[in-house]
This record gives sequence, C-alpha cells and structure tokens, in this order.
Amino acid sequence: MPDKDIYPSRTGNAEQIVSRQDPVVYSDALSGDTHTLSRSQLQSYSEDGFILLPDYMPEMAAPLLDEIKRLKKSMADKEELVTEPDSQNIRSLFRPHKYSALIDRFSRHPKILNIAKQILGSDVYITQARVNVKPAYRGRSFAWHSDFETWHVEDGMPRMRAVTAWIMLTENSEFNGPLFVIPGSHELFVSCSGSTDDKNYTRSLKMQQAGVPHTETMQQILNNRTIKSIHGKPGTVVFHECNLMHGSPDNISGMPRTVLMVVYNSCENALEKPFSYKAPRPEYLRNPDARAITAAKSQIDIDE
Amino acid sequence: MPDKDIYPSRTGNAEQIVSRQDPVVYSDALSGDTHTLSRSQLQSYSEDGFILLPDYMPEMAAPLLDEIKRLKKSMADKEELVTEPDSQNIRSLFRPHKYSALIDRFSRHPKILNIAKQILGSDVYITQARVNVKPAYRGRSFAWHSDFETWHVEDGMPRMRAVTAWIMLTENSEFNGPLFVIPGSHELFVSCSGSTDDKNYTRSLKMQQAGVPHTETMQQILNNRTIKSIHGKPGTVVFHECNLMHGSPDNISGMPRTVLMVVYNSCENALEKPFSYKAPRPEYLRNPDARAITAAKSQIDIDE
Repeated sequence: MPDKDIYPSRTGNAEQIVSRQDPVVYSDALSGDTHTLSRSQLQSYSEDGFILLPDYMPEMAAPLLDEIKRLKKSMADKEELVTEPDSQNIRSLFRPHKYSALIDRFSRHPKILNIAKQILGSDVYITQARVNVKPAYRGRSFAWHSDFETWHVEDGMPRMRAVTAWIMLTENSEFNGPLFVIPGSHELFVSCSGSTDDKNYTRSLKMQQAGVPHTETMQQILNNRTIKSIHGKPGTVVFHECNLMHGSPDNISGMPRTVLMVVYNSCENALEKPFSYKAPRPEYLRNPDARAITAAKSQIDIDE
Repeated sequence: MPDKDIYPSRTGNAEQIVSRQDPVVYSDALSGDTHTLSRSQLQSYSEDGFILLPDYMPEMAAPLLDEIKRLKKSMADKEELVTEPDSQNIRSLFRPHKYSALIDRFSRHPKILNIAKQILGSDVYITQARVNVKPAYRGRSFAWHSDFETWHVEDGMPRMRAVTAWIMLTENSEFNGPLFVIPGSHELFVSCSGSTDDKNYTRSLKMQQAGVPHTETMQQILNNRTIKSIHGKPGTVVFHECNLMHGSPDNISGMPRTVLMVVYNSCENALEKPFSYKAPRPEYLRNPDARAITAAKSQIDIDE
C-alpha cells in the first residue's frame, strides 16, 4: 500500500490548488564538483522552477538528431513509439537510452548528471526518458499539466524530488510550438478532479485529458503569474522541476521541434504503488530500478 | 459565366505554385488625403504583403470589445455566428457592421478607409467583415491559407485587388495564437489540388481543409522565406493583402485573442460567379453589393 497521500489528485473530489510540501533544491550548497550550477543559478531555479542554459552542449545536437532518425526505424514496432493523435507521425519515443549507446552516454554526461544530483541532493536514477518530436506543419499541442501529478498518481512517485533535463535538437522558436512554462507554478500542486482510467496512458500519451487543470484553475494560477516561452538554439539545455506547470501550442511552422528529455529522480524517492491504486504503467514510462547511475567515464567516452 | 480563370484552383489538377498576375499597390502616388500611408510604408506593404501600424487606434479597442460582448448575445441565433470545432465557444462572428452602428462607423473611419482606397487605387466596398475570437485555453488554430484563394474559388472574386484591415482588441502576443504570415508570399498563387464541396463553408469556417496547401508546397514557399508573427497592443491595426499566406497556432494561454477584420474590395473588382461553378456562399460571407462606401462624416460622428 502506498504511504499516506500528501498530494491526492483525481480522487473524485473537487479540483483545488494546494501548497507544495517539498523543497525545490535539496542540496544546500555547492558541491565543488565540476559542471554544477552557481549559487545564483540555483536561486533562479528555485524561484522559477526551471533554468535555461543557452548553447550548453551544441556539439551534441547533430549526432543526437542522426541517432533519433536511426531509432525511428529500428524502434518502429516497439511500444515505446507513440504517434500523433491524428496521423502516423511520431510524437514521442520513450526509453531511447536503452536502444542507443549515444543517448545512454548523454544521459550520464557529467554536464547533465552533476546538475541533477546537485539539485536533488542525492544519487539519482533515470525514471523516464523520451524524445519528443513536434513535426513541422502538423505537430499537435500539449495541454497544461504538471508532470509530477501524473507520475504521482499513475506511477507512484511519492514526493517532488525529480528534475527533467532536456536538450534542444532543433531550434526552439516562437513558431514551432515551443514549451510554455509558468514560472513559480512549481510551488503549487493542483489536485485535479476526475479519476484515472485503466491504462490511461494509452490515450494520454497522444492527448492528455486526466490531470489537465480546469480553465478556472489555470486562471487562478495565472492571476499573478505570467507565461514564459522557452526558446533556444540547438544544444541549449533546460532543467525543469517535476511540478512546473507547462504546455505547448501546436507547430504550424516548417521546422520540426525535436527535444530529448531525461527525467532524474532521487534514489531516495523511489516509486511506490501508484496513488491511483491502478496497475502501474509499463516500465518504459516508469523505471522501477532506482539504483544510482554513474557518470559516463570521460569526455572521450562521450564524444567517441 | 465567369471570365477566363487566371487563378485556377481546386480544379482536380496537381497542386502548383504560379506567379501573381496583379499589382499589389494600385495607386501610383500619394493622394494628399489625410490618413494615408507614406511612400516608404506603401513600399513596405508592397514587398511584405502587409503593414503593421502599432497603437494606431487605441481608443477604439475597449468600446469595440464591449460592443462584441453585446453582439454575442443579440446574434446568438444568427447564421453569422460560428462556433469552435469542438465546443460552443465563438470562433467567428460575421457581418458585425450590419448589427452594430459602432462597427459600421469603424469600418468607414477615414483612418482605415483612406488607406484601403489608397492601396486599391479606387473606390472600395466591404466584401466581408468578421470578428475572430480565439478563446483563452481552448482557441483552435487556423491552417495556412490565402484568403484570395477561397474568395476566388468560392465567391467569384476575379482579381487580387482586396485588402483586409484588422484591429487588435486584446493584446496579440506570442502566447495567444497570434497571426503568422509569410512576408512576400502574396506574390505567389497556390493553385490547390482537390475540389470544392457543396456548402464547403459550413465546415471550412470551423476548420479549413480545401484551399490549404500541402506540406510540400509550404516547404517550397518557406524555402527562401521566413514566418513572421504579428504582435501588438490593443488598438494596433494591420493591413494585409488578400493573397498573403497566413495561419495561426492555437491559444493555450489565459488571454483571448480578439480581432475585428474588415475586407475591402475594389469597386472595379466586383464578385462574379464562383470559379468553382458551385452555388455562391451566403451574403454574410460575400457581399454582392459593390457600391462604393463613403467615409464616416467626422471624428465626432465616430467617437460619439
């Protein structure tokens, strides 16, 4: 049985906004490790719920894009591949690090991993990883949501102690359906109404409905907050907190928006039984193996 | 019978891009009238296919918004009111100048009308007018299209000699599904494949399909052109050429995007029979009365 649920959601009660019960940054200090955030960067992450690192790993964008092109073919018959709601275009590709040595090395690169460990104040493991492709002309939108809400209800993530690192593989601009975030929204938890259907993920990965706050709730959140849009060149990296409210419009431009996202969870925050009491989602969406991962050995190892 | 069709489209042939056969600016000079564009503004309009006039009529935004609120109720049972494809939210409200003295006066305001006459080099009439509302959180996108393509095929507009003037009634920003245009695209005509269904407008006003260029065609158009997004404060006015390729993403923000659009056609370009040979659309979409309109008499008349 799960622990007492301090973040109940989709329990049949009316929707409400409650306060976050957890820290945002778990380490109180700079570790002295290479590739970590400065104090002011940590402060900014703590307040906004995300931090943008422009042009952080530009050399990785082209090789990762090539790798994804290859994976689209080799993973064509895998359940990890999710198509758009109204076409056969690829929307998401899960667990790519299991199928690609390059992506595995990226996910353990010190420039990424050290920051995840710093923010979460512990060893970490990868609880989910995905490529999101928003194809040119027809890429569909993502509704407003907190990742944590889903991971808590459907995957049994007990506390807010996870961070998503993602790298832009194509330019992310105003025109190709960029990520919209609401800075500061990670301090609130929207306890959503409704319930969780069995195998909800088979629909929600195409178009999310459960866990999407009502318009009235969004209005409350935006009452004294604004939306910010995340733009950057290929190679820009973003760390965003698991409970940050985000969404994105559709892509009618001629440029696909492709990003690789890796979700790090604290080893001290291992998944329990889903708080929905439903069957857990497949392992490609919620890794049950909470053993710490280690950094890729060297720069040579990564860039080989 | 219509004249020989120099802009054939939806005739069952393969899609192709052909060159524009018409001028963009029809008057070769500055008329000396008040409220007209400067030579450099005309030049910019000619090259880009649109011109943005920031903060042009800020005093009109609030009264027009109020008026539209009133019209939504008084026009509730009218065919001029079009709802979103997936909800009862209002998407468009046609011919508002017939139902509102304020909007009628706006549409004949010298600050608008004189520019329309200058660009088209003749007397003008209103061939269509509409309010577009893209509601907060759930406003849906508009696919890429040229207005002229529809007006030609479905309404019998013979030549490219019309201009749309529109005023922003709420802020138009990156976040609420702003208009995307492709500067220079008005010099091309996309002869679309497919055909025109009977009463196509009953569907296309909710979600356009006929007259939407293929992805491959858009790629050709964007090969050496870029997308520009039209932003501005309430009261900003835009003039855009009838054949400019435009579209807009959906609105997931908390701010509705409301605009009032008035389409001026040259009195020398009166509508003929539709080039699709189908029955003409209703008069709220294509005004058959091509008699010249006259400016609202005075500023007092307008602002009363």
